[in-house]
Amino acid sequence: MENKEFVKDLTKMEDDFAKWYTDIVLKAELVDYAPIKGFMVIRPYGYALWENIQNVLDTEFKKLGHKNCYFPALIPESLLNKEKEHVEGFAPEVAWVTHGGDKELEEKLCFRPTSETIICTMYARWLHSYRELPFKYNQWANVVRWEKTTRPFLRTSEFLWQEGHTIHETPEEAMEETLQMHKVYADFLRNYMAMPVIMGEKSEKERFAGAERTYTVEAMMHDGKALQAGTSHYLGQHFSKAFDITFQGRDGKIENPYQTSWGVSTRMIGGLIMTHGDNRGLKMPPRIAPIQVVIVPIAQQKEGVLEKVETLRETLSKKYRVEADTRSEVTPGFKFNHWELRGVPLRIEIGPKDIEANQCIIFRRDTLEKETISLDALDEKLEVLMEDIQNNMLKMAEENLEQRTFYAHDFEEYKKLFAEREGFAKIMWCGDRVCEDKVKEENSTTFRCIPFEEDRFQDVCTICGKKAKHMIYAARQY
Amino acid sequence: MENKEFVKDLTKMEDDFAKWYTDIVLKAELVDYAPIKGFMVIRPYGYALWENIQNVLDTEFKKLGHKNCYFPALIPESLLNKEKEHVEGFAPEVAWVTHGGDKELEEKLCFRPTSETIICTMYARWLHSYRELPFKYNQWANVVRWEKTTRPFLRTSEFLWQEGHTIHETPEEAMEETLQMHKVYADFLRNYMAMPVIMGEKSEKERFAGAERTYTVEAMMHDGKALQAGTSHYLGQHFSKAFDITFQGRDGKIENPYQTSWGVSTRMIGGLIMTHGDNRGLKMPPRIAPIQVVIVPIAQQKEGVLEKVETLRETLSKKYRVEADTRSEVTPGFKFNHWELRGVPLRIEIGPKDIEANQCIIFRRDTLEKETISLDALDEKLEVLMEDIQNNMLKMAEENLEQRTFYAHDFEEYKKLFAEREGFAKIMWCGDRVCEDKVKEENSTTFRCIPFEEDRFQDVCTICGKKAKHMIYAARQY
Repeated sequence: MENKEFVKDLTKMEDDFAKWYTDIVLKAELVDYAPIKGFMVIRPYGYALWENIQNVLDTEFKKLGHKNCYFPALIPESLLNKEKEHVEGFAPEVAWVTHGGDKELEEKLCFRPTSETIICTMYARWLHSYRELPFKYNQWANVVRWEKTTRPFLRTSEFLWQEGHTIHETPEEAMEETLQMHKVYADFLRNYMAMPVIMGEKSEKERFAGAERTYTVEAMMHDGKALQAGTSHYLGQHFSKAFDITFQGRDGKIENPYQTSWGVSTRMIGGLIMTHGDNRGLKMPPRIAPIQVVIVPIAQQKEGVLEKVETLRETLSKKYRVEADTRSEVTPGFKFNHWELRGVPLRIEIGPKDIEANQCIIFRRDTLEKETISLDALDEKLEVLMEDIQNNMLKMAEENLEQRTFYAHDFEEYKKLFAEREGFAKIMWCGDRVCEDKVKEENSTTFRCIPFEEDRFQDVCTICGKKAKHMIYAARQY
Repeated sequence: MENKEFVKDLTKMEDDFAKWYTDIVLKAELVDYAPIKGFMVIRPYGYALWENIQNVLDTEFKKLGHKNCYFPALIPESLLNKEKEHVEGFAPEVAWVTHGGDKELEEKLCFRPTSETIICTMYARWLHSYRELPFKYNQWANVVRWEKTTRPFLRTSEFLWQEGHTIHETPEEAMEETLQMHKVYADFLRNYMAMPVIMGEKSEKERFAGAERTYTVEAMMHDGKALQAGTSHYLGQHFSKAFDITFQGRDGKIENPYQTSWGVSTRMIGGLIMTHGDNRGLKMPPRIAPIQVVIVPIAQQKEGVLEKVETLRETLSKKYRVEADTRSEVTPGFKFNHWELRGVPLRIEIGPKDIEANQCIIFRRDTLEKETISLDALDEKLEVLMEDIQNNMLKMAEENLEQRTFYAHDFEEYKKLFAEREGFAKIMWCGDRVCEDKVKEENSTTFRCIPFEEDRFQDVCTICGKKAKHMIYAARQY
């Protein structure tokens, strides 16, 4: 009965996907709305997920020779103004600090929307010789972008992210770094978040403000919309020239270094929810789940049940992130819902009869299958299941991506397809901005990327019929 | 020769302590000044130290049942205004965001100087029943306090910290939490930072704005000034009443919970420097050092030297944080200075003759002693030395604390003592604010704390001669 009530409580994804999403992030207690429009509070369960993401990525960054540091959150207006494209891209969406204490500031400061400008200022001071290169720095920080329409994780006025900023002696090295970090993101999303992505390059129109090239990892959500999950930018010498970063090269000449920047944010959590969630709530991939196993006692008032649960919790905690739900004021059914909503990959149920039979029931969140197994086999079984759930979640996401991808040979077909469904349209493109603008204006779709692996299925542009240059993934997006 | 030049480069602490401090933080590349007055950039070496501090404390917090989360950096003015004492304490030193994008905001937002107000707003929304208590949340975050006089780490307009915020059913539990976290800080400073501290309570005058009781850990610097290294506040029901946080108690009645907050910041790094540094630079306690062992090759151009160094680095890296300095453009002497300045606890020197003799030279930064030892004994020796250096650094800091502590029986003696030296004056106090104000106005010293272990050496107040209530540690402070 409680089960029914609970499902009633969560909007069905097929009825209203946006409402389903909001229901989940709030009811699973990942976030709450802050009392400031467009800002979110990340609650412990959501933050634990972010910490797991941070741990994996931070270890990977460090393995590749990056060092963490911290730059000020507030940036003087004059610095933001130094790189022309950059300021045009960001100025409309920054928050301005105009007063410190009771005094008006001589120069207003913006809350960093990204940190290229302040970091370049310092790089210019620190760099002297080619011998010191590369600088490979990263910071985990909060940023503010004043957004008009916001949604928890996906688009908020303040969010948490990491931003890597590197400078190199040669363009080749900088490009290698850009592509390496692009791959780090793709691998992380695939191997930990169980999110398959399209790896590709942004068109000029969609590039980061100030970048020469932007690479993106694009994921496909349950509702057929694309989500940009991370970007890596090759900045060339745009910023190093604007900020006068110089070094003495091997030949004694003064040169400007080549630069990259790359970042992923709490937005990825939104992507995780919309990739794996269902009408019961979240599904967490085991490798990144804040809680991997929850133990729910049955008839816990009976002698020996809670003791057994505690022994089990202690044993399993050596290998997994485990929680035992021993609340006495709610029923096991309520607890089942509670943890299914939160997407815990595995649930163990154990009651007096199970204990007597030296067994327990295992429920897996991804397939909703239940199985009775001997406690002696539990250790081995869990290991297999963790792997299996992780792989199965990736497989299901891959299937969604595949089913949501279609070809559009001409613009009529393109419009017809998007009228019927959402997803990735594979199209051919002449390279002309006019065609790119047209799909946005007439169909509110955008070019997500030119994939690394182009599937050149025809010679002519899907939009205008002229000779095609590139294959494009187009979609509606978050 | 390079050695001399280097020492010349660093101001001596006995000549100008403040300049010595600034020299160290800049030259050891812990921080740099940002292009915004009062702000600092934390460079990789400084940030690695902060990460080590975070790791130890975060693990300890979680062991005690605290969960991390994240609250917005910007707080509406109306929230800050809710608790009277709190706003009076903080309003003069906050930075105000008045514009978002190109629009003026309806209500200005302050960059959090601390987060009680925003967290209490959310706690009021989340709490319903005594069953949900306690809430034990913590966040690692940046805060801004608009300071007039700033110094890297010690006092900057933006700094990094953790702030714990808990609410409890009873005053006893809240007080227990306050004292527990106070002890966590003291133990951490002693066992990891090798900084002995005085544990005590702040006088009413020195309390946190809005707290009922404030506990502090006070450390003694090399120059005899005190440093407040961390505080824990018992907030009683001040905030829970102002923010209308309520719950249904065991007896069905609606009640306000009892609250605590506690924090330490990057300021601790300033304390570490001024506790352990000398005229060669920093000294890092091994347990918290970003680099524990540096290997410097001698005659590295000779065959086999760099290979041996790499083997050594690889082996030692399994147990320690190790760096091998194989730069070819600088001499070993230059490298010695470089790493001594940065305070690396142990240096290993190894050259062709050492390799032939199956030995190396070990230099310890704390005592400046050199020793030749067999490579076969290295593993065992390092383990002993790490412990020994950690203990010796604590011992030296304890000796400084002891030598810098003196008794003052009356106000004349008090003034005379502070005219001759800096340090902790143990005084007796009547409990009257007038006496506390007097030592500040007439002697620019402040009451640091009423220690837990009061050494009641006389019955009368050092300042006024009336009956004494408490023993006080007084000092000039950072």
